Amino acid sequence: MAQGAIKKVVLAYSGGLDTSVILKWLQEEYGCEVVTFTADIGQGEELEPARAKATAAGVKEIYIDDLREEFVRDFVFPMFRANAIYEGEYLLGTSIARPLIGKRLIEIAAETGADAISHGATGKGNDQVRFELTAYALNPDIKIIAPWREWDLLSREKLMDYAASRGIAVEMKRDGTKSPYSMDANLLHISYEGYDLEDPWVEPGADMWRWSVAPEDAPDQATVIELMFERGDCVGIDGQRMSPAEVLAELNRIGGANGIGRSDIVENRYVGMKSRGCYETPGGTILLKAHRAMESLTLDREAAHLKDELMPRYASLVYNGYWFAPERLMLQAAIDATQEVVNGVVRLRLYKGNVMVVGRKSETNSLFDASIATFEEDAGAYDQKDATGFIRLNALRLRVAGRKNRC
Amino acid sequence: MAQGAIKKVVLAYSGGLDTSVILKWLQEEYGCEVVTFTADIGQGEELEPARAKATAAGVKEIYIDDLREEFVRDFVFPMFRANAIYEGEYLLGTSIARPLIGKRLIEIAAETGADAISHGATGKGNDQVRFELTAYALNPDIKIIAPWREWDLLSREKLMDYAASRGIAVEMKRDGTKSPYSMDANLLHISYEGYDLEDPWVEPGADMWRWSVAPEDAPDQATVIELMFERGDCVGIDGQRMSPAEVLAELNRIGGANGIGRSDIVENRYVGMKSRGCYETPGGTILLKAHRAMESLTLDREAAHLKDELMPRYASLVYNGYWFAPERLMLQAAIDATQEVVNGVVRLRLYKGNVMVVGRKSETNSLFDASIATFEEDAGAYDQKDATGFIRLNALRLRVAGRKNRC
Amino acid sequence: MAQGAIKKVVLAYSGGLDTSVILKWLQEEYGCEVVTFTADIGQGEELEPARAKATAAGVKEIYIDDLREEFVRDFVFPMFRANAIYEGEYLLGTSIARPLIGKRLIEIAAETGADAISHGATGKGNDQVRFELTAYALNPDIKIIAPWREWDLLSREKLMDYAASRGIAVEMKRDGTKSPYSMDANLLHISYEGYDLEDPWVEPGADMWRWSVAPEDAPDQATVIELMFERGDCVGIDGQRMSPAEVLAELNRIGGANGIGRSDIVENRYVGMKSRGCYETPGGTILLKAHRAMESLTLDREAAHLKDELMPRYASLVYNGYWFAPERLMLQAAIDATQEVVNGVVRLRLYKGNVMVVGRKSETNSLFDASIATFEEDAGAYDQKDATGFIRLNALRLRVAGRKNRC
Amino acid sequence: MAQGAIKKVVLAYSGGLDTSVILKWLQEEYGCEVVTFTADIGQGEELEPARAKATAAGVKEIYIDDLREEFVRDFVFPMFRANAIYEGEYLLGTSIARPLIGKRLIEIAAETGADAISHGATGKGNDQVRFELTAYALNPDIKIIAPWREWDLLSREKLMDYAASRGIAVEMKRDGTKSPYSMDANLLHISYEGYDLEDPWVEPGADMWRWSVAPEDAPDQATVIELMFERGDCVGIDGQRMSPAEVLAELNRIGGANGIGRSDIVENRYVGMKSRGCYETPGGTILLKAHRAMESLTLDREAAHLKDELMPRYASLVYNGYWFAPERLMLQAAIDATQEVVNGVVRLRLYKGNVMVVGRKSETNSLFDASIATFEEDAGAYDQKDATGFIRLNALRLRVAGRKNRC
Repeated sequence: MAQGAIKKVVLAYSGGLDTSVILKWLQEEYGCEVVTFTADIGQGEELEPARAKATAAGVKEIYIDDLREEFVRDFVFPMFRANAIYEGEYLLGTSIARPLIGKRLIEIAAETGADAISHGATGKGNDQVRFELTAYALNPDIKIIAPWREWDLLSREKLMDYAASRGIAVEMKRDGTKSPYSMDANLLHISYEGYDLEDPWVEPGADMWRWSVAPEDAPDQATVIELMFERGDCVGIDGQRMSPAEVLAELNRIGGANGIGRSDIVENRYVGMKSRGCYETPGGTILLKAHRAMESLTLDREAAHLKDELMPRYASLVYNGYWFAPERLMLQAAIDATQEVVNGVVRLRLYKGNVMVVGRKSETNSLFDASIATFEEDAGAYDQKDATGFIRLNALRLRVAGRKNRC
Repeated sequence: MAQGAIKKVVLAYSGGLDTSVILKWLQEEYGCEVVTFTADIGQGEELEPARAKATAAGVKEIYIDDLREEFVRDFVFPMFRANAIYEGEYLLGTSIARPLIGKRLIEIAAETGADAISHGATGKGNDQVRFELTAYALNPDIKIIAPWREWDLLSREKLMDYAASRGIAVEMKRDGTKSPYSMDANLLHISYEGYDLEDPWVEPGADMWRWSVAPEDAPDQATVIELMFERGDCVGIDGQRMSPAEVLAELNRIGGANGIGRSDIVENRYVGMKSRGCYETPGGTILLKAHRAMESLTLDREAAHLKDELMPRYASLVYNGYWFAPERLMLQAAIDATQEVVNGVVRLRLYKGNVMVVGRKSETNSLFDASIATFEEDAGAYDQKDATGFIRLNALRLRVAGRKNRC
Repeated sequence: MAQGAIKKVVLAYSGGLDTSVILKWLQEEYGCEVVTFTADIGQGEELEPARAKATAAGVKEIYIDDLREEFVRDFVFPMFRANAIYEGEYLLGTSIARPLIGKRLIEIAAETGADAISHGATGKGNDQVRFELTAYALNPDIKIIAPWREWDLLSREKLMDYAASRGIAVEMKRDGTKSPYSMDANLLHISYEGYDLEDPWVEPGADMWRWSVAPEDAPDQATVIELMFERGDCVGIDGQRMSPAEVLAELNRIGGANGIGRSDIVENRYVGMKSRGCYETPGGTILLKAHRAMESLTLDREAAHLKDELMPRYASLVYNGYWFAPERLMLQAAIDATQEVVNGVVRLRLYKGNVMVVGRKSETNSLFDASIATFEEDAGAYDQKDATGFIRLNALRLRVAGRKNRC
Repeated sequence: MAQGAIKKVVLAYSGGLDTSVILKWLQEEYGCEVVTFTADIGQGEELEPARAKATAAGVKEIYIDDLREEFVRDFVFPMFRANAIYEGEYLLGTSIARPLIGKRLIEIAAETGADAISHGATGKGNDQVRFELTAYALNPDIKIIAPWREWDLLSREKLMDYAASRGIAVEMKRDGTKSPYSMDANLLHISYEGYDLEDPWVEPGADMWRWSVAPEDAPDQATVIELMFERGDCVGIDGQRMSPAEVLAELNRIGGANGIGRSDIVENRYVGMKSRGCYETPGGTILLKAHRAMESLTLDREAAHLKDELMPRYASLVYNGYWFAPERLMLQAAIDATQEVVNGVVRLRLYKGNVMVVGRKSETNSLFDASIATFEEDAGAYDQKDATGFIRLNALRLRVAGRKNRC
C-alpha cells in the first residue's frame, strides 16, 4: 500500500519475536521513527522486557499502558450486556480487545505526531480488520502499515532468518515453555490456533490448555458463588464489591480451577475462510450464564426476545471489527436501554466444567410473581378464563385460513 | 365457553388423576360421549392401564398410539435443524410434543365423527395454547373444551374430593413414588414445575431429577461417541445406523448416564407470566451441540448467520404453539434449504455433565480448507494483499463519516 | 368484565352519539360518577359542544385538552424518525394517537381519584387494544370498562333506540353532512372504514374523501417546497421555523391541496381479521418521503439498513398498541441514536398526488463525497484497485463452496 | 490482478465505445483470443451492430442471446415475490440483471473453453461486484479481467484518444442523441448517473428521462387496468394471459405513458460510497404495488410481516450481488413458500404518476371475511368478549412490570 513517505509510526508492540522483527523492518524499509505501544490487557505477561527491547532497538517514545480496567469496563461489560456469542460458541475474547488497542494507537499517534500506525496481524486473519477499521473510523487519514501483507517473510523460517541476521533475540514463548500454537490472551480469554488444530478432526493434546484445568482434574467438590449485578454488569462476588477487572480476574481464577470455559470450534472468519480455534474463557463463561439468569428474572419478555434476535448481528459486528461503527452504537443503545432493571444476585454451582444456575433473586426488579404463577389457587391474581379469548383471537387468522383449506 | 351442544368429544387422556376426573366431568357436564386418546411419545409409562381405566369409565372408542417415530422424525428433528433454543436455555421439550398431540386429536375427531376435543392443560400455561392453536389451524370449526378454564376444581384438594366422590382411583405417580412436582415427559425431555420451584432462589432437592444422574455421580471416565449426520439429521451413532426415535433414545441413555442435560431456568410464558422450570434433556443437549458442530464445518457463513438470527423467532413460534402456522412453515423452508450439505461425523467427549466437541469431518461437504487457513506458506491459495482492498472499502463509509467528525 | 364496584370512571368522550350513549349507559349500569375527557389532537372539530353536552348529562369534572403539540412532538415525530409504515402502506395515523389518549385517561384518573376508565372502541378493532395496553402499562390496577364488549347495543339501530329513549340528541356528522363510513381523524390523518369498503373489490365513491382533493382536481402547476430537518425532525418549511404541530398542519394543507396522501388498503388487525380501510395522510406522506431523503444523504449505510430491518417490527408495535412497552422504547433508543446527524434541507415537488424529491443538502452532515463518487478522474480519492481485494475476499466463501460443487 | 497467462476470454460486449476499447485492449495487453457476448435483456437497442463490430475486430466466437424471458421469469419475478426495494426507494433494476449476465459469461466460457471473463464495469461501482461474485460462485477457478481496475484510461478523454488511435468508431449514444449521463437499461428499468446528478441538490433536466413522460405530460384521463396473479407472479393484464417478459414490457408501456416510475435518490453503494441516481421503472412500480395488494388479501398476517422484516436483507443481497449465494437461496425458499396462495386479481388506476389500488379479489384464496369484519351485527362470527382475555393476557407482563414502577 503505497502511502507516500511515512515520518513516524506507532507500532502495537508485544516485545515478542514477530513485532520485534516488524520494529526493525519498519526502521529499515520505511526509514521512519517508530513509537512502540505495549498494553496490559490482562494477557499475563510482564511488560517491562518490552520496554528494554524497544529501548535497545533505538525507540525514543515508548508507551506502556495498563488498560485492564478500561478494557473490562468499556468493552467487555457492554458486550456481555448483549449476551454476545459468535456462531453459538465463541465468546469474542480476541475480537473485543482489538478496538481498544486500535483506539490507543490512534490516540498515541495524535500525541506523538505520528502519521501512521502498524501492527503484527497477518493478512489472513480477523485482527488486521479489527485494528484497521478502528483506526480508520477514529482517524480517517491515518496511514496503516501491515507488514504481513507487504513483506515476503511469510514462513516462520524466513522470519527467524531475518531475526538472526539483525541480532533480534528469539526467546522462548511467554511463560518459559514453547508452544507450537499461535496464541492470544487478555483478561477475557486465551486462544489457540494452528499446528495440529489445522485438522478439525484431530483433538488437541492435553498440554495445549493453559488457563484452566481439565474437568477431570477439577475439584471433586462443587464451588458455589453468588454474583451481584447492577444495571446488567457484575459488580461483585459473594457480597464483595469489586472493580470490573477484579471481577473478571476473580472469575477466571475460580472458573479455571473448576475446569470451566474450554471450547473447541470451527469458525467463519470475516475474510472468508473457516478456521479452527480453541479457547479458554473461564470467567466469561460464568459471567454469560449468570447475566442471562439475572435477565430471566428481571427483563421483560419482549425486550429479552428482541435482544436475542439482535444478538447474532451484534456479535458479528464485534467479531468483524465494527466496534466504532454507527450500527454497533445503535444496537448498544437498544441493549443498554434494557439493562437499568437488571439488578440482583445469581447463585451458581461450578463443578468440573459445569456452570449451573441454582438461584436468582432481585429485591427491586424481580418480575417473577409467584401469586400468579402458582399451581395452587391464586385468589384472583389471574383469571384463567382470559386465556380463552387470548387463544381464540390468536387463532382467528389460522381458522380463517383453515377454512380456505390451508395451513 | 358455551359452544352449543356437544355430541362427542376426543379427550387427550393419560390415565392419571387429572384426565380421569376430566373424563368423568365431561360425561356429567356435557352429557356427551367421550373418546379417549393416549399416545406413546416416549414418556416412559405403560399405556395399557389407560385403556383399562377408559373402558371402566364407559368409553367405547379408545385410541392408543405409538407416535415415537413420528414425533422425532417430523417434529424433533426439523426443530433441531434450526438449532432452536428458547430464551437461551430451553430446548422446547414440552412445546414440540403438543402440536403432534393436537394433530392426532383432530384426526381422531374426524375418524370418530366427534365435534369437540378436550385436554387437561390449565388456563395459566402454554400447553392449552399449543393444543388449541394446532386444533383450530387443522379444523377451524372444532369445539374445544378446556375444563381447567371452566370448572371450579381449581385446587388439588377440590380435585381429590371430586375424584373421591366419583370413585376415581387416586394412584401414586408414574413410577410408583410420589412427586410434589408437576411433570411432563416425552422422548425429548422431562420437566418439573411447581412446589419449591415457585421460589426462584431455592435450589430443588437432588431427588427431583429422574432421567439423569448428577454430574457428581457420573462415571469418572469420559465417554467418546461419534454422531453421523445426513442432511442435518442424526442418522446413527458410532457407525450404527438408527431410526430417529432410536437415535434419541440412545442419546438419552448415554447422556443421562453422564449427567448431561439438566437445566434450571426462569422462562417467559406466552400467557404473560414468568415461571420457573427444571428440565432434563440429555439426548437433546448432545444433539444440539453436535448439530452445530456439523454445521460449523459444512455450512456457509452467511447461511449460518442468517439461521442464527432467525432462530430466536423460530423458537418462540414453537414455544407459543405456532407449529402449524404459515410463518413457521416459511422459516422451516429457509432452514431446510440449508441442510442438504450438513453431512458428516462429529466426535464428542461426554464427561460429568460436559458435552465437548473434539472432532468433526465431512468427506463430501467440508468447507474447511487447510491450504487457505494455514499459518504456514500457502502456495498462493490466498493472496494476503487482497485484504488491503477488502479493509479499505469496508472502512470507506467510516472514513467519510470520520471526516465529518463522527463515528 | 366484573371488576367489583366502580366508583368513578374517566370516559374518553367525543360528544358524538356513541360516547354520549356510553356516558348515559355508564351512569345507569354502573351507577358511578363519570368524568369526561375530550382532546383536541387535530381532528378538526369544535370541542365546546362536548362540554355543553357533558354538563347537560350531569358530569361535574370535564377535561378538555389541546394535545396537538404533545401529539406531534412526542408521538408522531419519534415514529417518523423510524420511517414507520405498517404492511408497506399504512402510516399509522390512528394507531399513534391512541397511546396519548390512553395516557391522559390514566393521568386524569389519578387527578380525579377515579378507579376506572372507559372508551368507545369496539371489540373487533385495534383501538381497544391500544387504549387498554397503554392504560394497564401506566396503571396496572386500573379498571377498564369497554361497553361495546359488554352491552347488547351491537347494531346501529339498537344504539339509536337507546339514544332516543334517553333523550340523547342524534346529530348529523361532524361537518354537518352525514357519512356512511366509520371515520377517525387527528393531525396525522383521517380514516374510513365500513359501508361499501366492506367489499375489497369495490372502489369507494369520490365523495368519501374529505381532506384532500383528488389528484385529478389538484392544481396543474407543481408546488415546490423545502423542508428543514434537525436531528431527524422537520423544524420548518421554506425557511420558516415552525412548531411540530404547525409543521404537520401546514404539510396537511399543502399536501391536501395537491391530492397527496390517499391510500386504499386491506390490512391485518391485531385481533386476527383482515379489514379494509381508506386513509388520507397528506402531511405524513410528504414527511416520510422527505425524512428518508434527508437520511439518504446523512445517515451511515449500515445504520440505515438496520433501521430498515427493524422498521416493520417497530410499526407492528405501534399498530398493536405497544407504545409504552419496553421493546418499543428499546427500538426507539436505537433509532434516536442515529438521528443526531439527520440535519439539512430536502426539496420536493408536489404535483397531483406525487411527492418527488428533487434535491437534498446538508452543510454539516452530508456523507455524499462527490470527489469519490465522480465518474471523472478523482485524484486518488478512491483507489479502484482496492475493489479487487474487496471482491476476492467477499467471494472466497462462495469459491470454496463452489469447489465442492455447490452454490 | 496477475493471474498467469490468459488464453481466451469471454467479454460482456455491448458494441458501445467502452467495451469496444476493452475488446481491443484485451487483444493487445493479454494477447489472447476474445469471445464476445451480447445479450438482449430488453435494453431496447439493436444487437446486430455489435455482431458486425465484433467481426470487424477479429472476433471468431460471437454470442448474441435473447435472454428477456429468462430475465423476467427467473430473476425479476422471484425478486418481486419478495417485494424487494433497496433503501426504501430503489427497485434494483440494474442489480437484478447482473447475475444473469454473469451466469451466461461462465456458461459461454465453459462452452468455448475460455479461462477468463471480462466486463466493462468500473472499479467504483456495484456492477463489478455483482458480475464477479456471480462468476466466482459458478466457477471458482475462473480468471477475471476488469480493465477499469487495471488500465490508466481513467478519464473519458484518455479513452477517446485510445479509441481514435486504434480506429474504434466513436458513435453517438443509443438512440442517436448524445446523453451526458451514464445509463443502463433492461426490461425492468433505465438508470442515470453522473454529470449534473453528482450534486444531490441539483434537479436533473427534463430531457434526461427517456422511458416515461413527465406526470405533467401524461393523459388527463386515468387508465384502469387489472393484473392477474398466480402464485405471486403476474400472469396477465385485463384478462389477457402473457409471458413474463410480455407482462413487463406491457406494464412499461402503460406505466411510461402515464408518467409512472421515476425516482431520484441518493443510495449507498456496496463499495462504501454514496452515489446519486435517477431511475425509470414504470412496469416494476406498478407490479410492486399490485403484488403487495394481492398479498394483502391472500397472505397470512404473520407470513406477510416476516416477509417485510426479511425484505431489506433480501434487497441488500440482490443489490450487493449475492444472487447465487446460499443466503439468498435460503430467503427465496422462505418467500416462495408463501406465494402458493397469492392468486387473484388487482385493479389499479394509473394517473399522472400515481398508481392507485382500487380493488382486489381472489376467488380461491381471499382471507378477507366480511362476516367477521363487518361493523354491523355479525351473527356470532366473532365474539367481542374474546377481546377482553386477549388484551388482558397481552397486558399481563406490562402490568407486572408496572407494579415494579417501570414501563
